[in-house]
Amino acid sequence: MTPLEAALRDAALRTEATLEECLSAAHSGDTPLAEAMRYATLGGGKRIRAFLTLRFCALFGGEEEAALPFAAAMEMVHAYSLIHDDLPCMDNDDMRRGKPSCHKAFGEANALLAGDALLAQAFEVAASNTHVSDAAVRRAVAELGRGAGALGMTGGQYFDRSETCADLDELHSLQRLKTGALIRSASLLGCFAAPGPLPENAIRDVCRYADGLGFAFQIVDDLLDVRGDAAQLGKPVGSDVKNGTKTVLSFLTPDQAQRLAKECTADAVAAIRPYPGSELLCSLAEYLLSRDH
Amino acid sequence: MTPLEAALRDAALRTEATLEECLSAAHSGDTPLAEAMRYATLGGGKRIRAFLTLRFCALFGGEEEAALPFAAAMEMVHAYSLIHDDLPCMDNDDMRRGKPSCHKAFGEANALLAGDALLAQAFEVAASNTHVSDAAVRRAVAELGRGAGALGMTGGQYFDRSETCADLDELHSLQRLKTGALIRSASLLGCFAAPGPLPENAIRDVCRYADGLGFAFQIVDDLLDVRGDAAQLGKPVGSDVKNGTKTVLSFLTPDQAQRLAKECTADAVAAIRPYPGSELLCSLAEYLLSRDH
Repeated sequence: MTPLEAALRDAALRTEATLEECLSAAHSGDTPLAEAMRYATLGGGKRIRAFLTLRFCALFGGEEEAALPFAAAMEMVHAYSLIHDDLPCMDNDDMRRGKPSCHKAFGEANALLAGDALLAQAFEVAASNTHVSDAAVRRAVAELGRGAGALGMTGGQYFDRSETCADLDELHSLQRLKTGALIRSASLLGCFAAPGPLPENAIRDVCRYADGLGFAFQIVDDLLDVRGDAAQLGKPVGSDVKNGTKTVLSFLTPDQAQRLAKECTADAVAAIRPYPGSELLCSLAEYLLSRDH
Repeated sequence: MTPLEAALRDAALRTEATLEECLSAAHSGDTPLAEAMRYATLGGGKRIRAFLTLRFCALFGGEEEAALPFAAAMEMVHAYSLIHDDLPCMDNDDMRRGKPSCHKAFGEANALLAGDALLAQAFEVAASNTHVSDAAVRRAVAELGRGAGALGMTGGQYFDRSETCADLDELHSLQRLKTGALIRSASLLGCFAAPGPLPENAIRDVCRYADGLGFAFQIVDDLLDVRGDAAQLGKPVGSDVKNGTKTVLSFLTPDQAQRLAKECTADAVAAIRPYPGSELLCSLAEYLLSRDH
């Protein structure tokens, strides 16, 4: 196991424990609604967003316990977005992470409500982070609200469904919202969990890293969707094409797309390599570029 | 026009102006998604939640400009809940506030996303309230997340759809979540917008007022649903019964229900009458009891 793989596993384990606590009966009840929230959030996923939050907090001198509630909030927002994305009126996907999607397992109304409750409670979890200052909570909540809203992820979901992309630039703009916004929020929340406000240029470097990583991640997703293996992905291969979703392969050959993903990764790495302790974040970018699922 | 009616009108106007700003192109974009958000939020509703936020802030010595962002956030959360409630997988209502419901006007996927974006941006609006301290933002966001989550409004929506009520107590518990939680959050956010943390007993009195008002409000809703006139309500009369929703009329005669609503109102008023300046809040409780739409 590489140092990155060990760090990813550890971060996922600790995030999982925090999520278990956040979604326990005490915080979400013991109804089928709460069960649906746990089903969609626990025990799956790469926890990339949580890892970004934890590592950026560490990079700027913060304690892990200060980052964990923010990391859990990021994963709750991510889980909510997947539940709603899978609904019949959206992508109508029956499978997610190798098991029935939330509405297949709990019914459509419960899935809708589970997503809603996860989004609301993500903000409660962030605001209940007692290891950071009130000012840090304010910054984190504002960023998370922006990243998840109409000028962030939800706006990206809208564009993905309803607008056509004339060229690669327009597709890039769409991806910056749809997947990029939350990756940026996850990175910034890590920064906010570290002591003291960061200088503007550090925030810019973090955003440049997040943007490069986010676009590379999406390109690799698009490539895997045509090349990948259904069992490894946990969803039907070709489902993006099936639903008419725009991918970089509408504008680039697979080789060109692979090269672009490499360039984005290199740019992401260049942005943060000067910071001492950024090795794992650099490795993450390389790892996501070469992943096969 | 009574002093209360004038105050309600003024509060609604200023809340509307704040909402216009929060949902402007700069904050939500100029897409059909943003249009759906504005359609569902602007130009309608009694703005009772915003009024509670504004008046409780004033009651405890706060400035209106400190309460307005919180009031707008409350109305955004309320608007989101109505959009999702009306969806085909939920109540499947075609009309809302006398016009086509959001999914009828914009399609199901856009309505789902508009609700999602409103919820996320409500927290951004609350966190961007520059007229209150960071500590006040933290308290407000935590309360709003709790009030909207699985142990609040969303939990109430789940119970309303999926569980049966054996008696009036169980129905009361359901209503405390479904409509009561957000009314309580609206009242508390007003308190948090006022300077300095309030003593525990004041918070308890505010919650007692909110709980009494909330249950009375719901009982009157149930009574209007059988007695009311479709044109005044802006939705089909009897729609609650049609969908099998539990109402107090499952357990009480209309006269008993009316008496219970009066008792709840009296209890709400008793909780806050001792506070100088509470006249309008007391009038509001009486007004909601006697409303005919």
